[in-house]
Amino acid sequence: MSENTGEDYRASGVDLEAAGRVKDRLASLVASTVDQHTLSPFGLFGGLYSVPDTFQQPVLVASADGVGTKLQVAFMTNRHDSIGKDLVNHCVNDILVQGAKPSFFLDYLASGGMDEEIVPEVISGIAKACAENGCTLLGGETAQMPGFYSSDEYDLAGFIVGMVEKDNIVDGSEIKIGDILIGLESSGLHTNGYTLARKIVFETMGLRVGDEFPGDKRSVGDVLLDVHRSYLKVLAPLLSAKLLHGLAHITGGGIEGNLPRIFKEGIGARIHLGSWEVPNVFGVLQEGGRVARQEMYRVFNMGVGMILVVSPENANIVLDELGKTSIGSWVIGEVETGEGVRLE
Amino acid sequence: MSENTGEDYRASGVDLEAAGRVKDRLASLVASTVDQHTLSPFGLFGGLYSVPDTFQQPVLVASADGVGTKLQVAFMTNRHDSIGKDLVNHCVNDILVQGAKPSFFLDYLASGGMDEEIVPEVISGIAKACAENGCTLLGGETAQMPGFYSSDEYDLAGFIVGMVEKDNIVDGSEIKIGDILIGLESSGLHTNGYTLARKIVFETMGLRVGDEFPGDKRSVGDVLLDVHRSYLKVLAPLLSAKLLHGLAHITGGGIEGNLPRIFKEGIGARIHLGSWEVPNVFGVLQEGGRVARQEMYRVFNMGVGMILVVSPENANIVLDELGKTSIGSWVIGEVETGEGVRLE
Repeated sequence: MSENTGEDYRASGVDLEAAGRVKDRLASLVASTVDQHTLSPFGLFGGLYSVPDTFQQPVLVASADGVGTKLQVAFMTNRHDSIGKDLVNHCVNDILVQGAKPSFFLDYLASGGMDEEIVPEVISGIAKACAENGCTLLGGETAQMPGFYSSDEYDLAGFIVGMVEKDNIVDGSEIKIGDILIGLESSGLHTNGYTLARKIVFETMGLRVGDEFPGDKRSVGDVLLDVHRSYLKVLAPLLSAKLLHGLAHITGGGIEGNLPRIFKEGIGARIHLGSWEVPNVFGVLQEGGRVARQEMYRVFNMGVGMILVVSPENANIVLDELGKTSIGSWVIGEVETGEGVRLE
Repeated sequence: MSENTGEDYRASGVDLEAAGRVKDRLASLVASTVDQHTLSPFGLFGGLYSVPDTFQQPVLVASADGVGTKLQVAFMTNRHDSIGKDLVNHCVNDILVQGAKPSFFLDYLASGGMDEEIVPEVISGIAKACAENGCTLLGGETAQMPGFYSSDEYDLAGFIVGMVEKDNIVDGSEIKIGDILIGLESSGLHTNGYTLARKIVFETMGLRVGDEFPGDKRSVGDVLLDVHRSYLKVLAPLLSAKLLHGLAHITGGGIEGNLPRIFKEGIGARIHLGSWEVPNVFGVLQEGGRVARQEMYRVFNMGVGMILVVSPENANIVLDELGKTSIGSWVIGEVETGEGVRLE
């Protein structure tokens, strides 16, 4: 074939060889996540995963998510090893609330260039969290989009598939008036409210990522990058024991936006605001941004990352089990006749 | 609760109410894609899809993809109804090559704002293509990331899960020396090579999206937005009849980058370059950008969107079946001892 001096793909900003090198480095990270059902991770064009024959009526539960503008904090601190954990754990929690345990995960990572340091760092966080959650990293797409993203920025999305026995789906249909609401401690902002949080911290309060966070010995960057917690290990035994009537992952929209999603018509909830201690980070944001309390609870998890709905008879059994874990838990309210959530 | 005049989420650029309105408009689009296995599209936190009990040993095939910088052409033309079809069809082809038919799809759409016109237009393209491919639109994430994307720009990624009977997986293991390579006509650039194509068309050649494309009666925008073709309907009967030893979806990396992915060691292929007519769009790009022929075949599909590997005995049966469809097909080469692909 003839060569000439015209345009080529590398000059236009897309480096297929760098992409190949990065792909090779990812292979060993992926290998750490593979289980016996994985027929082909990152194989051919799609990844292969066999449905375990232990299921009577397997139901797939799937969810897609991003990490929002928490990415900006990763860029500002140049720390890219934890954002993939946020992504995986967020996705794990989103299917866990329907009773599913994760089977496999795929990522979409789009960047301006193919940074040979940053990309493996991001994917290593994804792979570590997949391994921690017993989830195969089955595939993904790493897209080079020069002119769309700047060379040191990227966007990140995740896609998870889990499985649940049809009879064990948790869909809130068993929730009854009088059921108890138990809150599980979050590990910080998780992945929601970062657009507002960054505006308050970096603009209104004028802090920089290396500054000490008010009321905390750690830096602003450290506090804002606290990893979104996975509730899989804590909740798996309670799901197996069929002790849960409902689960709500508290993400964007807060308690009011997420808890009612699992309620049938005519069911509401009352939340007792003094029943848990709101962590320092939320107090700092509220005060620093002069944010209305109502708005705080609409945007942030306020210290409660997951809400369990349990029958009054099972509440103490569940609280005892939760007490054996390192994650804080509190009775924060109850199910009542009505609609939506009353915070009081 | 007290209100004050401080920060709130809408002022920081995230509009939860607009997001809610857009979500409501999407519900009817999603409904058109639902099949009998869909227990819950866009439900709760994850979507539910039951594994059909008609499978003996169901294997899930999953893939993640984006549409790359073809998005820029959608932005330039302000046409957002076809980019979702590109995304779905690309994903469908990626799992089809392993013998899987699509079950469900999820999208990730990230934008600077929540444009109430553009977002439903994008999702409607996704939903239409899902319906055409017999695939449930099971869920998705529409992320508002102000300051990350400009208000009228967005990125788009898709995740697909299909199923195949374990014994019917197409993995290239049956490919033999002497097998025939049949190429299927592409419908244009599909979703690859847009960074280079845009540079040539808009910078080197100085064309605008509304100009007539050289050698074509249509506009530059129309030609560059030609929808990535799904090969599901054409290939499904051939897969059911077990007539295919291998399938390669020709995406980024071209024939040389994709065909060898299904070859075992010691197997290569010879491609006869004169055996099909390279469409006008590729000739215009090659000439306009003074691109080396080798580079053209590494970046673009050059008119061949899918390659089938069939035994010499079955080649005529397959060609007869393909002849009944509207998609062009040609014998373009054969499998030989060696490695990689020789274009000659």
